[in-house]
Amino acid sequence: DTSSKVFLPENSQDTGPILYGFAQITGSQQFGTPGNEGLIFGAHRIRLGVKGTAVPGVTYNFQYKWDGAWMSGGSLENANKIFPGVSGESGVQDAEINFGFIPEVQLKVGKFRVPVGMERTQFGGDDLWFIQRSMNQSLGADRSAGIMFHSPDVMNTGVYYSLGVFDNHSLDGNNAFTLFGNGNPTGIANVGVPFVKTTAQTSVGGVLTQGSGRYLFAGMVGYKLNPLLNIELSGARADALNAGPGLANSITAWNVGARGGMMGLKYMGEYSHVTSYQGVGGLNANDWYVALAANLHEMTLTPDWLDIEPAVRFERFNWNYNGQAQYLNNTTLGINYSVNPDNPYAARIQLNYVIPTQGAAFRTAYAEGNTGAVPTNGYIYNTLVLQFQAGF
Amino acid sequence: DTSSKVFLPENSQDTGPILYGFAQITGSQQFGTPGNEGLIFGAHRIRLGVKGTAVPGVTYNFQYKWDGAWMSGGSLENANKIFPGVSGESGVQDAEINFGFIPEVQLKVGKFRVPVGMERTQFGGDDLWFIQRSMNQSLGADRSAGIMFHSPDVMNTGVYYSLGVFDNHSLDGNNAFTLFGNGNPTGIANVGVPFVKTTAQTSVGGVLTQGSGRYLFAGMVGYKLNPLLNIELSGARADALNAGPGLANSITAWNVGARGGMMGLKYMGEYSHVTSYQGVGGLNANDWYVALAANLHEMTLTPDWLDIEPAVRFERFNWNYNGQAQYLNNTTLGINYSVNPDNPYAARIQLNYVIPTQGAAFRTAYAEGNTGAVPTNGYIYNTLVLQFQAGF
Amino acid sequence: DTSSKVFLPENSQDTGPILYGFAQITGSQQFGTPGNEGLIFGAHRIRLGVKGTAVPGVTYNFQYKWDGAWMSGGSLENANKIFPGVSGESGVQDAEINFGFIPEVQLKVGKFRVPVGMERTQFGGDDLWFIQRSMNQSLGADRSAGIMFHSPDVMNTGVYYSLGVFDNHSLDGNNAFTLFGNGNPTGIANVGVPFVKTTAQTSVGGVLTQGSGRYLFAGMVGYKLNPLLNIELSGARADALNAGPGLANSITAWNVGARGGMMGLKYMGEYSHVTSYQGVGGLNANDWYVALAANLHEMTLTPDWLDIEPAVRFERFNWNYNGQAQYLNNTTLGINYSVNPDNPYAARIQLNYVIPTQGAAFRTAYAEGNTGAVPTNGYIYNTLVLQFQAGF
Repeated sequence: DTSSKVFLPENSQDTGPILYGFAQITGSQQFGTPGNEGLIFGAHRIRLGVKGTAVPGVTYNFQYKWDGAWMSGGSLENANKIFPGVSGESGVQDAEINFGFIPEVQLKVGKFRVPVGMERTQFGGDDLWFIQRSMNQSLGADRSAGIMFHSPDVMNTGVYYSLGVFDNHSLDGNNAFTLFGNGNPTGIANVGVPFVKTTAQTSVGGVLTQGSGRYLFAGMVGYKLNPLLNIELSGARADALNAGPGLANSITAWNVGARGGMMGLKYMGEYSHVTSYQGVGGLNANDWYVALAANLHEMTLTPDWLDIEPAVRFERFNWNYNGQAQYLNNTTLGINYSVNPDNPYAARIQLNYVIPTQGAAFRTAYAEGNTGAVPTNGYIYNTLVLQFQAGF
Repeated sequence: DTSSKVFLPENSQDTGPILYGFAQITGSQQFGTPGNEGLIFGAHRIRLGVKGTAVPGVTYNFQYKWDGAWMSGGSLENANKIFPGVSGESGVQDAEINFGFIPEVQLKVGKFRVPVGMERTQFGGDDLWFIQRSMNQSLGADRSAGIMFHSPDVMNTGVYYSLGVFDNHSLDGNNAFTLFGNGNPTGIANVGVPFVKTTAQTSVGGVLTQGSGRYLFAGMVGYKLNPLLNIELSGARADALNAGPGLANSITAWNVGARGGMMGLKYMGEYSHVTSYQGVGGLNANDWYVALAANLHEMTLTPDWLDIEPAVRFERFNWNYNGQAQYLNNTTLGINYSVNPDNPYAARIQLNYVIPTQGAAFRTAYAEGNTGAVPTNGYIYNTLVLQFQAGF
Repeated sequence: DTSSKVFLPENSQDTGPILYGFAQITGSQQFGTPGNEGLIFGAHRIRLGVKGTAVPGVTYNFQYKWDGAWMSGGSLENANKIFPGVSGESGVQDAEINFGFIPEVQLKVGKFRVPVGMERTQFGGDDLWFIQRSMNQSLGADRSAGIMFHSPDVMNTGVYYSLGVFDNHSLDGNNAFTLFGNGNPTGIANVGVPFVKTTAQTSVGGVLTQGSGRYLFAGMVGYKLNPLLNIELSGARADALNAGPGLANSITAWNVGARGGMMGLKYMGEYSHVTSYQGVGGLNANDWYVALAANLHEMTLTPDWLDIEPAVRFERFNWNYNGQAQYLNNTTLGINYSVNPDNPYAARIQLNYVIPTQGAAFRTAYAEGNTGAVPTNGYIYNTLVLQFQAGF
């Protein structure tokens, strides 16, 4: 009787919980920086998740993370006091419950991705074309807490949509909807905080009982014509609780994307625009990129066991720094290698080389400690990254 | 051979480890507060656990939590600097090992619930009648580290008991045995800390090697006569390491509870009393509540597929504030809906509306920042909470 | 169809992920200390891991920890403000990916044990002979991030080796390669930090993009002649980023160990030497120990169901304190009891009594707050520890 040796989900009567996860180990180095240079080893993403069907019609997905080899103490924690950000992050990545009784009007509740941005919503951390997402992510939203109506394919037409309302910020960091007064030049933070600290009671035993009356609204509509073309339009708007001089009272972001492919050749492009960035009002930052990838294995240009995929991305980030238009271009050259073509994301090695151009103003801003000026995934020095991935 | 595709516990020869977990997503709003008002989304409890039989006679249960959509950084962490408590909590919820060789005298070691309080010890976070436990919890103890002798049913008589000794505090927060000088008016904290910082060495490589010689003792005895009646008496006492003027040198809590039900109708009531509260000595706080629930599905009053359960709870918390008797009443109206009656806690939606009365003094105390006066689960404004739950 | 009730790994085509874990609950007390004394309960190690084969030739092992009953808040967190260290530690313990295509030259990447020290690398937290590892650990390295070539048995000769390069420190704490200027008398910390905070950009979206050009190199070679003899030599060297007066510019550690056994009788011994300790240069600390254990069950001296193992360890730690040679001896008497001899680590109880001698200087140093002088696992007062373990 081997059945006693397997994991028995306690209550599930239908589809058992599926455990999934992966880790990404990196070695990276920058070139041409003003300081010491050298290879540094690290862990990019480390994830563990459980998903399944609770009862017919109700599915769940809970994902936890220990990105950056997170520990609550130790060397990284201490190093973080010197250089904030190196200690990684742990916590709940996704906690979503989906009610799919009506396929065309499904309801999702919890913490999950705000429906803005093609790359952000269509690709997970373990199946990205490049090691890092595009700078485009800095201008959209990441995960937040809320509810969303959605359908992946309305009556088999190829049309899909999402329409959600969330607390007025992004729970996950490093984007336009994160605590968006934080790190701005005036030093006034927290304009995007969804909580109000008044004489009212706002938290009772773990339940946040009082909001600010401000929200983040987001919507997306897309169309999958055929494998060659998938277009998508999305947008989000959040109102700040309050804003200091020069800070944004609200932030609006929108994104248009297209992607497709055939026989191993793939393309993807996005354009994003935000009214405000890093809490500063009226900056109208925008970003566009185009990416191409050619899976030589799918194109049957390699031996059967060799799954190699060269990829290239050109991206341009536009911002207004002290009244002057500023640019940062990142060209990323990449090669993706899957150890087993039949299971490409279970064991994968990715090599990226990023070449920034026109980044002088960003380097200056960064040197002045004005780190908010640099988009999250924007490189300002030539950088080589090698990433090993294993998952299950 | 599909057996290689399932989760194989490494060492277990008997009952395989069982993975369990759930998440609760909330949307809530308060009415009549002095500040902004609005709906706020959040995650109440997020849990993952493993339990099973290590070897015959020895069972284990390890549960981890990420309540409040906890993350080590991000928006919540930053918001927490403004309003403490919003960032949730992560960590080990339970880590218990049970030696059950003698059914009448079982030994449990680890971190687990101190045996005080009927609702606290008989109901888990995913099968509560209401979204929040009663205020009664504030006057008892939560989980702590220690050892406990217990039996769930002594010689089939219906009598059960627990008798334990723990470090002199509750590891989990928000109750009478938590760091109980913390937040009191005099500002002297930590009277309940089980550790002493002397010139002695108190920690060696992860093992806490020196205690203070003060403990928390707790005991419970109960009787299950039949489905109609389960009565229970429990109590706990802890000695503080040291106490400032006005603070408690010790704290004693006791609880009496009764519950039962038949054909879908259920009742439960508890009375609790503590000598000290929030570290302040001699306050003699007490609390009582009665709760009723009627499962219309079990009563066969609804169609077979509809599992609806109205519930109501009336509770009164009594405290002594600056020499004057103070009261807080909370009336909770609730409706519980299980998506699938055969698996009621796998997918559940709960709606609660809480109406506080006689809470003026608490609102005043809260406005003065004297938050310790408000019991953990006590509402001081009308509050609506909707909670979605999925588990496995 | 029961297959839907088991945990299905998402992508694995070969060996399914194996979930493993354990918890260790302790009760301990010290004797002869200058302050309060008493039993204290705690959780030593709490672990959860997943390991398996991603694709043929590529294996992974991810382990998470909540040692010390870690929680992000609560009593322990507050107590930690008074006595640092009591709140435990959580995070990623191991995150390793192994490429084993060539058995003699396997490549491991991620966060894992630096190959220094016999006990450190050959024994896990759940199969140690004593509750704590030897003081020897303080003079070696723990886990770090890097890459390593290795083979467990070169061409069936019994010879094994490891050769790795890591960031220039140990990610896990409490050893010679941890942030090694921290806690030293001069107060200058962080000489071992692998990161540089210059005007260069060092972190992009979770990838640490710039190192300091300093590394930790480590190597090990061993030989398993037969069950009676396994010898091993290992060493590591790391360069500091910068060092204040009296602090080490580099640190070198080496270790030699031997172990073996027959029919239940086991021995193990190690000698370690470091040039610097706790960041202070030129101290030449060293340590040696010998340990013996006799498994009476394997020796068939006990009834078939009784698995008892007495064990003893004598250890001597030598250090230079303010120019004077100082010693700390720890004699550990232990008894290990496995509930089920067929599955000895699934449920185990260990009792240790540690007798320190010649520790007067360490007690003085500790009283002066000079805690760096005391090796991590060194006891300076008589200590009794009882530990319960359950695993799967």
